[in-house]
Amino acid sequence: MYTSSNVSVNEKGHLVFAGMDTVELAKEYGTPLYVMDEERIRERCRIYKKAMDEHFGNGSIPLFASKALSLKRIYEIMTEEGMGIDIVSSGEMHTAKKAGFDLSKAYFHGNNKTDFDIKYGIENNIGYFVCDNADELRAISLIAGEHRITQKILLRITPGIDPHTLEAINTGKVDSKFGAAIETGQADSLTALALSLDNIELCGFHCHIGSQIFEYEPFVDAATIMLSFIADMKAKYSFEAKELNLGGGMGVKYTDSDPEICYSSNLNGIATLIKKKCNDLGINMPKILMEPGRSIVADAGITLYTVGGVKEIPGFRNYVSIDGGMPDNPRYALYQSTYEAVIANKANLTPDYKCTLAGRCCESGDLIGEGMMLTKPVRGDIAAVFVTGAYNYSMASNYNRIPRPAMVMINKNGSYLALRRESFEDLCKNDI
Amino acid sequence: MYTSSNVSVNEKGHLVFAGMDTVELAKEYGTPLYVMDEERIRERCRIYKKAMDEHFGNGSIPLFASKALSLKRIYEIMTEEGMGIDIVSSGEMHTAKKAGFDLSKAYFHGNNKTDFDIKYGIENNIGYFVCDNADELRAISLIAGEHRITQKILLRITPGIDPHTLEAINTGKVDSKFGAAIETGQADSLTALALSLDNIELCGFHCHIGSQIFEYEPFVDAATIMLSFIADMKAKYSFEAKELNLGGGMGVKYTDSDPEICYSSNLNGIATLIKKKCNDLGINMPKILMEPGRSIVADAGITLYTVGGVKEIPGFRNYVSIDGGMPDNPRYALYQSTYEAVIANKANLTPDYKCTLAGRCCESGDLIGEGMMLTKPVRGDIAAVFVTGAYNYSMASNYNRIPRPAMVMINKNGSYLALRRESFEDLCKNDI
Repeated sequence: MYTSSNVSVNEKGHLVFAGMDTVELAKEYGTPLYVMDEERIRERCRIYKKAMDEHFGNGSIPLFASKALSLKRIYEIMTEEGMGIDIVSSGEMHTAKKAGFDLSKAYFHGNNKTDFDIKYGIENNIGYFVCDNADELRAISLIAGEHRITQKILLRITPGIDPHTLEAINTGKVDSKFGAAIETGQADSLTALALSLDNIELCGFHCHIGSQIFEYEPFVDAATIMLSFIADMKAKYSFEAKELNLGGGMGVKYTDSDPEICYSSNLNGIATLIKKKCNDLGINMPKILMEPGRSIVADAGITLYTVGGVKEIPGFRNYVSIDGGMPDNPRYALYQSTYEAVIANKANLTPDYKCTLAGRCCESGDLIGEGMMLTKPVRGDIAAVFVTGAYNYSMASNYNRIPRPAMVMINKNGSYLALRRESFEDLCKNDI
Repeated sequence: MYTSSNVSVNEKGHLVFAGMDTVELAKEYGTPLYVMDEERIRERCRIYKKAMDEHFGNGSIPLFASKALSLKRIYEIMTEEGMGIDIVSSGEMHTAKKAGFDLSKAYFHGNNKTDFDIKYGIENNIGYFVCDNADELRAISLIAGEHRITQKILLRITPGIDPHTLEAINTGKVDSKFGAAIETGQADSLTALALSLDNIELCGFHCHIGSQIFEYEPFVDAATIMLSFIADMKAKYSFEAKELNLGGGMGVKYTDSDPEICYSSNLNGIATLIKKKCNDLGINMPKILMEPGRSIVADAGITLYTVGGVKEIPGFRNYVSIDGGMPDNPRYALYQSTYEAVIANKANLTPDYKCTLAGRCCESGDLIGEGMMLTKPVRGDIAAVFVTGAYNYSMASNYNRIPRPAMVMINKNGSYLALRRESFEDLCKNDI
């Protein structure tokens, strides 16, 4: 079974997550059910915040990457933990605003901000736009002018790093829909344009090299390239960047075969080299931003399902069907991501039944995992899938017109609902 | 540009779809916008209905496969066209019911019906369950007994056909999460179980061999196997199936390089061979059901987007970003599906600009297509993507907290809203 400090088994043989009996949670709230460990989320925020404060200093803070998990409750937690956030849409901004999050600590990302997004951001006093391209830069300048403000921005730069991760989540390469590349001279041109436009205050640069990166070297490589670029821009335009945003991408242990990461020592390693590099280049150490999303919430979440059919095809394989699947967790369908699972009401029994855990959608690709080892379940058992806190709810659909699950948070006082289960009426709400 | 009888260009150089200027539609309803040609949907229903009535007879009808597109309006159209439907969840059933669809003409599918689904179906007088496995069969028998009714069912059988389509949408093989295989003897056992259980009336069998099948031979192969199975079950259990459901899977022309399909002559070809086979086997011609979904709605739909950034990376490629992407159309991200597109306000100009059409999500894999040929657009232009009527809205998510688009239908009287655009408040509706 997946090992983590918030996972155990009680005397009934039930899976315990964050101190709560998951079989009881399934009974109380129904399935499918997202379950989040609030303390784990807070603990990770504190690790990042403390490490960045200690190692980088100069106002450096982590920004929670909303795309990993966006709902009101998460922004309340981020407020309480003193985190910044990054957002990639007006919808994420709206949700943060409803939760009372101070949007001056928000960075608005993305390769395509619409005019509406820019207006909505400016009207809500968004802290920064992380500007992607020349078209967008001109639009921000124009709209900021109409609102008679000076808008702070960073520029998104592609440093040309390939951290050897999946193609689909590899964004630091020159050939990317995001940002302007240093290699082609376009990052330089975009900087010149930003410095020439009215109503814009260029504060620095942003890069993002990919996802599920387990080593800290790729971040150091990226930082090295970005600091050299900062030095070049200082020499060329007498512009010295005050902020450097190194993006997200720190890896997460999805299965026991993945390494465990010490985020704090990783950050220390990065900081040491950044300080040295700044010194070598003769530039001031900028305020450093990082954008952990997955590594804050992923292993703070599990999903509980009820088992339906158990089917054995002699000579082929065994299928265990559950009452959810790609609508609530499309990551296998999209990336063939690996997960570990357990039969929550039989967590003390040997997992000796090799099977495919299949979702309920009318689609062969709707699986949670293949070759999984479970205790053989029967209809009505509860299956728990680990490490579903990131990119599950945020990517969820209503495919096959299946309502999205409820989400329960667990803290020291017990469990509480953070997200109501969608109703059938919700599904038809906008049908005319 | 993609050619179809409902696609043209007007004197302003604007793309016309189903007789309407798409640039005007984008202006009136905003973007992203799903646009559906109601007449095309009805025309396809009539082709299927007429061909099945003429060639198969005996009450044979097409069932619209809800998973391709489920919203209230589609079920009103299906009612008016005298179609049956298949559904795969209580959510689809609820939507059909709200639209006043007669659920006695509905077939409830899926590899995992929960006890709730079975109760909800029985309480709403669902026509048939297409029963997937022994666990489910026993659950239906039990719940039907509690409701003192006899529930009609079909059994889902895997005939062992591989129609050489994509792995993810290939469902007729023995190694499938769906149904019971003839080859392993499990289809026989499931039939015996169904015949032995109380409160169940076994009416026949169902199979589904895959998706995007352009030839009719795979259907004939499947029908041949299924009819032999029917004959075997007649010989063994004196049970003669009254219904044979051949599932869906007829191909759709997504791009001009795909073949155009004559659905009517395909059905004629299938019918001829089924009749001969029944005669050879000494069984009565069963009522034939088929489940077109994609081929009814796919090319009845386009999606309109507003162009944002246009980015040229020398030596690499050009990126055109739009205000939608994988949240409204995840098919490239999931299957690397191919689409054709056009700049709707420049549809009379030469499409000589090779580019990647990129969605707005913070994810490199969020693309609509690579190597597309468009007229070079500028920020604010309208891009139209063809053949998005199936598996776009039904698979849509709120990834990056992006509201789902509105859907407009076009008929002889003009355009009307079938689905309201999601609001930011909708996104937070279940947040606590």
